[in-house]
Amino acid sequence: MDKTILLAHGSGGKLSHELIRSLIAPGIANDLLNRMDDSAILDISGRIAFTTDSFVVNPLFFPGGDIGKLAVCGTINDLSVMGASPLYLSLSLIIEEGLPTADLEKIMHSISAMTAATGVRVVTGDTKVVNRGSADKLFINTAGIGSVPDGLNISGANAQPGDQIILSGTIGDHGVAVMAGREKLRFKIPVESDCAPLNSLTADIISFGQAIHSMRDPTRVGLATTLNEIASQSQVDVVINETSIPVKEAVNSACELLGLDPLYVANEGKLIVFAAADQAQAILNKMQQNPLGRDSAIIGEVRAKHSGHVVLKTAVGASRIIDMLSGELLPRIC
Amino acid sequence: MDKTILLAHGSGGKLSHELIRSLIAPGIANDLLNRMDDSAILDISGRIAFTTDSFVVNPLFFPGGDIGKLAVCGTINDLSVMGASPLYLSLSLIIEEGLPTADLEKIMHSISAMTAATGVRVVTGDTKVVNRGSADKLFINTAGIGSVPDGLNISGANAQPGDQIILSGTIGDHGVAVMAGREKLRFKIPVESDCAPLNSLTADIISFGQAIHSMRDPTRVGLATTLNEIASQSQVDVVINETSIPVKEAVNSACELLGLDPLYVANEGKLIVFAAADQAQAILNKMQQNPLGRDSAIIGEVRAKHSGHVVLKTAVGASRIIDMLSGELLPRIC
Repeated sequence: MDKTILLAHGSGGKLSHELIRSLIAPGIANDLLNRMDDSAILDISGRIAFTTDSFVVNPLFFPGGDIGKLAVCGTINDLSVMGASPLYLSLSLIIEEGLPTADLEKIMHSISAMTAATGVRVVTGDTKVVNRGSADKLFINTAGIGSVPDGLNISGANAQPGDQIILSGTIGDHGVAVMAGREKLRFKIPVESDCAPLNSLTADIISFGQAIHSMRDPTRVGLATTLNEIASQSQVDVVINETSIPVKEAVNSACELLGLDPLYVANEGKLIVFAAADQAQAILNKMQQNPLGRDSAIIGEVRAKHSGHVVLKTAVGASRIIDMLSGELLPRIC
Repeated sequence: MDKTILLAHGSGGKLSHELIRSLIAPGIANDLLNRMDDSAILDISGRIAFTTDSFVVNPLFFPGGDIGKLAVCGTINDLSVMGASPLYLSLSLIIEEGLPTADLEKIMHSISAMTAATGVRVVTGDTKVVNRGSADKLFINTAGIGSVPDGLNISGANAQPGDQIILSGTIGDHGVAVMAGREKLRFKIPVESDCAPLNSLTADIISFGQAIHSMRDPTRVGLATTLNEIASQSQVDVVINETSIPVKEAVNSACELLGLDPLYVANEGKLIVFAAADQAQAILNKMQQNPLGRDSAIIGEVRAKHSGHVVLKTAVGASRIIDMLSGELLPRIC
């Protein structure tokens, strides 16, 4: 292989086939992908979940992950929070000419490690190369398909007054880790991205069936904006308690240093659950037994049907409305 | 709306919601997309086709189309050539900061015109904005899901000795049109891209059931490379007749001027069918009745099981092996 990716690797011709055969396909190979037809043919019946995300994170490699891990986990998580079992992924690469082949190889290793760990299969893909300066190293799109069990009714629009809000762990880890990677910052206690596939945790949670009203992973927009989205979709008011929200000490210090509010900093391995009050404690207990939900906590609840406000009760007992993120906090965080 | 796209339009926060609500969603709105959850939930049963493509065409607007039309048609076609009825698309945008909002609006109009014309629905999406210089204006990824009728067995690996090869029309139109747009070339007879959704044509074709062995759209790599792919997947030899291959006079002249071989120039609204010999004439007749297949022609046939060579019988009676595209002919043609 050449040491860097050339324009001709994206031609669709000989070099593209060589790149796919020697570097892209080997780690993720399976009988569906190997057919190399224009679409994969899948046998599915019942309800399916379908989602997509493009990943443009900068830098490609950061403490706790890289763009490949992120691209697999991000789409797995968008399926999982709808209660789906993730099954199939597409993988589409836009590569800038000159990307070191070794970087692409490392990223493909991350992708195959994640698909192997989760049993999710990449079944279709695409590779484009653009000339130097027309993209920044590598962008990845993944779309995903999952199967949705009967008897679930999870949506951002289904939060109900009285619901308890459970958060699966500490917030802000991903955003701070990427910023540290980008700016080459060193913290006394290093912060790693929480990037992880949440499908085992959501599988535990959906065993509670109709008691689960809404689930969402608070990714690039952070906890505050995600709560605002659900409050707005469900037309309810939400109250959360600052002291109940787990934040790592290192993340807190880094946020103070960088002038960021952890409520608006990105996460890639956390989720929020809006659950019926009578089941909330049992759900919390179950979540805490899963390594991905060890630090789960009930952080607030849904108040009466209303205009979609999110209110934060602060440590000193004051209340303030927290709004959606306005402006751009940290570009290219995912 | 601002006159250009800002970084904050990709934050996932307020401005992102505003951009989606005011500019991206209106033309493509439907009850599934409108839920704005992390995945769309779809009711499907039986076999489905799943595919993805990223589009990086330069320029964004070219004679006969734009990146939006291309992104919808390209994925519809990758589903259609597998015999699937295209149903659902995802739409993921990577926008360079500074893209004129009016350009994005025009492109969204193309997308909604194509989804309206085909009945295919965009049900999930994503929008990222990267800082100026980190992408070239706009990249679009679409993934697609279609439903595959029973009784079909279409694959690039299913071509059989004796199969007749039908091409649905003239070759090279898309590649020449994009080059003309990029280099601001003016030809005496203007060339337009053939970019079109092929699902109505493939629906006609698959009514012939098991007589259809392979179908593929010869896109960025052109006719020659696509035939090589099928010959190699099926391990057969293919012979095509130069004089049977329809090429527009204007495309031929442009290719001579630019030093290109139309066999390797991109198409975005054409397909190749490998069909059982006893049905080939009837399939050809049917294809010629569809406006998208009016110029269809039988261009060659499959010889004995062999090593996957494609042989061109030239106008003067000579034979030469035509190989896959090597190197890069026209970067960013789709």
